[in-house]
Amino acid sequence: MTSQKEAVKKVSAAVLLIGDEILSGRTQDVNLQTIAQYLAPLGISVAQARIIADDEATIIEAVRTLSAEYDYVFTTGGIGPTHDDITAECVAKAFNVGISVRDDARKVLEDWYAQSDREVTDARLRMARIPDGASLIENPVSGAPGFVIKNVHVMAGVPRIMRAMLHNVGPTLKGGAVVYGRTVRADGMREGDIAKELGVVAAQMPDLSFGSYPWFTDNDSGVALVVRGTDTARLSEAVEQLMKLARDKGREPEVTTH
Amino acid sequence: MTSQKEAVKKVSAAVLLIGDEILSGRTQDVNLQTIAQYLAPLGISVAQARIIADDEATIIEAVRTLSAEYDYVFTTGGIGPTHDDITAECVAKAFNVGISVRDDARKVLEDWYAQSDREVTDARLRMARIPDGASLIENPVSGAPGFVIKNVHVMAGVPRIMRAMLHNVGPTLKGGAVVYGRTVRADGMREGDIAKELGVVAAQMPDLSFGSYPWFTDNDSGVALVVRGTDTARLSEAVEQLMKLARDKGREPEVTTH
Repeated sequence: MTSQKEAVKKVSAAVLLIGDEILSGRTQDVNLQTIAQYLAPLGISVAQARIIADDEATIIEAVRTLSAEYDYVFTTGGIGPTHDDITAECVAKAFNVGISVRDDARKVLEDWYAQSDREVTDARLRMARIPDGASLIENPVSGAPGFVIKNVHVMAGVPRIMRAMLHNVGPTLKGGAVVYGRTVRADGMREGDIAKELGVVAAQMPDLSFGSYPWFTDNDSGVALVVRGTDTARLSEAVEQLMKLARDKGREPEVTTH
Repeated sequence: MTSQKEAVKKVSAAVLLIGDEILSGRTQDVNLQTIAQYLAPLGISVAQARIIADDEATIIEAVRTLSAEYDYVFTTGGIGPTHDDITAECVAKAFNVGISVRDDARKVLEDWYAQSDREVTDARLRMARIPDGASLIENPVSGAPGFVIKNVHVMAGVPRIMRAMLHNVGPTLKGGAVVYGRTVRADGMREGDIAKELGVVAAQMPDLSFGSYPWFTDNDSGVALVVRGTDTARLSEAVEQLMKLARDKGREPEVTTH
């Protein structure tokens, strides 16, 4: 069973958050975690994320690089109606395809705004500019669609809209082996106390990945040992090892599944 | 006065968050916002951030690229005592310099652990491995130092330690023009209502940067118009324009300074 599971392809994704507001520190990003947690059970692991400004050259370079390097790319931000919304244009340039107001996207906007008292202004029509060959992603929150071109999924930056778009593209994604995680948390333990033993366990189970995450408060500290892998039976073996490691140091661990 | 201020150099930084835990979605990053908010008043703008896994080739490539492209680089994560802590090694490789247990770093650890009942184990001594030519960053939370090599500041990933290290390197940084921000928030307004007019304002004030950030709840929506620049008098002019823009659409705006 192990070999069968291991034979399942690993599928990777990159997340590209586009916009100045996270870089300036004004806004705390939440989209990366949402995307990572949504993709994980589909068998898609986020392998890299970049946060970049609304700058044409930077966006084009990042889209090209990440699209070539990972199975999927998910971008957020820069597809609204204002002057700083340049993502769609840049994605078209990254793939050397044209971009124009497309009839299918225009109809989506017309139908959407017909249900409110708002007009499809020229500014709003910018949101119907879709690269040639892209397919649309439905936006049930504010109407204007995202789009998919090659392996790049272009979504809105507003978390509420992004989540809705993500759920709409989910069924189209081809995942691989699902990576499961277990955390063995030991209060009062320090990394240095178990680093050597943890290294031994990690070397003995090269099919799993082991991480160690210390935490500190004013009065206390501890370590969370995290193990990840595609085979839950192997994960259980690893958890036993990690619990023994903590108990050998006189600490009673807590285990969580994720 | 404007020309004098504009003559001040813009200083940019990249943030490189190293570690699997943010990418997996298990942990919500907070370090990027902390770093951005700390650097802004020093006149250093975060221009790009990357979040990458504990993978040697990826770390080396990112350190080289970002170090060449930006005035400063700040990395977090991967400098603890465990097997997955490979950042120091990779930074040394990125700059083709050697790395070894250095006497100054060893003494820091020995002095630190002498004050507790903990020993300087071989695993802990890994944290005294510092690239040749680097200077140390003090860590008042858990002892083990970070380091600075060329323009790259290598810090811990634990937020509490990272903050302390950041405050210790702050006085050594040479900032440029401080970028100030103002937000004009108009509840009930939609981006499409003001996109054209906002574009006109942005085109008339090319020394400032304008952004538009819509938000949506179940029952309400609105837009935050953000303007940034180094000249506060110009910012005040811009705020007047943005407030007029909102009022012309029948919305009473709220202004915040950041």
